[in-house]
Amino acid sequence: MDNALDFYFDFSSPYGYLASEKIDELAARYGRKVRWHPILLGIVFRESGGVPLTLTAPIKSNYYLHDFSRSARFMGIPYTHPANFPIGTQHAARAYYWLHGQDCSRARAFAHSAYRALFSAGRDLSDLAVVLDLASAVGADPDALAEALAAPQLKERLKAECEEAIARGVCGSPFIIIDGEPFFGADRLPQIAHWLETGGF
Amino acid sequence: MDNALDFYFDFSSPYGYLASEKIDELAARYGRKVRWHPILLGIVFRESGGVPLTLTAPIKSNYYLHDFSRSARFMGIPYTHPANFPIGTQHAARAYYWLHGQDCSRARAFAHSAYRALFSAGRDLSDLAVVLDLASAVGADPDALAEALAAPQLKERLKAECEEAIARGVCGSPFIIIDGEPFFGADRLPQIAHWLETGGF
Repeated sequence: MDNALDFYFDFSSPYGYLASEKIDELAARYGRKVRWHPILLGIVFRESGGVPLTLTAPIKSNYYLHDFSRSARFMGIPYTHPANFPIGTQHAARAYYWLHGQDCSRARAFAHSAYRALFSAGRDLSDLAVVLDLASAVGADPDALAEALAAPQLKERLKAECEEAIARGVCGSPFIIIDGEPFFGADRLPQIAHWLETGGF
Repeated sequence: MDNALDFYFDFSSPYGYLASEKIDELAARYGRKVRWHPILLGIVFRESGGVPLTLTAPIKSNYYLHDFSRSARFMGIPYTHPANFPIGTQHAARAYYWLHGQDCSRARAFAHSAYRALFSAGRDLSDLAVVLDLASAVGADPDALAEALAAPQLKERLKAECEEAIARGVCGSPFIIIDGEPFFGADRLPQIAHWLETGGF
């Protein structure tokens, strides 16, 4: 039986980045694998009525800007808030699915490097050239990727992933589904660990 | 030096209830006391643009309804979602401040019994008669309380508490301030424990 965790995230989600640095190791401790699903929060928010945290009222956005960095320190993860934020992440998400079609572990390496590029190295992940560069760095052919990104198939693939996410109740990022049980937020990792340990509570 | 934690909450906040069951004990482990401040989220939301979680789009409100109960189980706290929710909590909040003016520990006992009445015993805390009954059960004079609740002073006191909360950056419930550091959400209790242990991180 496939008992992998489903990990939904937007590459522009700070808490998605924090979860991405922990989820594989956490699942592995309980003999589980993780399926990564980059999605676009802009599409999810049409259903959930959500708003990017930094675009809410100042009293709220100021708190979250502070919390992103503090939560990262708490979790032992480097974090520098991007100068340009939030950003469109359709190139990165589509590149992920293209890479995944060729080599799962290369796609995973790309996802980590994309998140770290945005939230630690100060690179603009909305820039197609940056996405191609990161894909190239994990061994992919950037010209073939550029061609694929210009064709309709990857757009359809990402759209289908977003639609499936919404159908499964995904209302934000990160969102993790374990054996049908939904967990929203990097701050649910302790509950996820307890769920994996106890088989539900 | 007064190093008490400031604990802001609305009596209609499920995560506020969960935090209320843990915060005093957590603070005491580090030699700290807690000042409790019931406020009205309706007033805070005018500033923060917030919406009660159960009144958001179904994809989101359904998740939170599920998460309230699961988070309570995770924390070992009884939880039954109220039939009438969310409710107005001005009577309970004002009663708290009236009790606090007479006897801090009686006010604390009332706050616990009010939260448990709503989220565990199925009582309607928006009902003035329920508030008077709960106050009476902790030793207060319900007639004197009813008279005080009809006078303007307690309304002004609660309004001032809400305004001070907003001025301090409180954008939701529960919201805990420790030596100027803000923490939003019952899921920040692990960070709060680490902050108290390390003096900041």
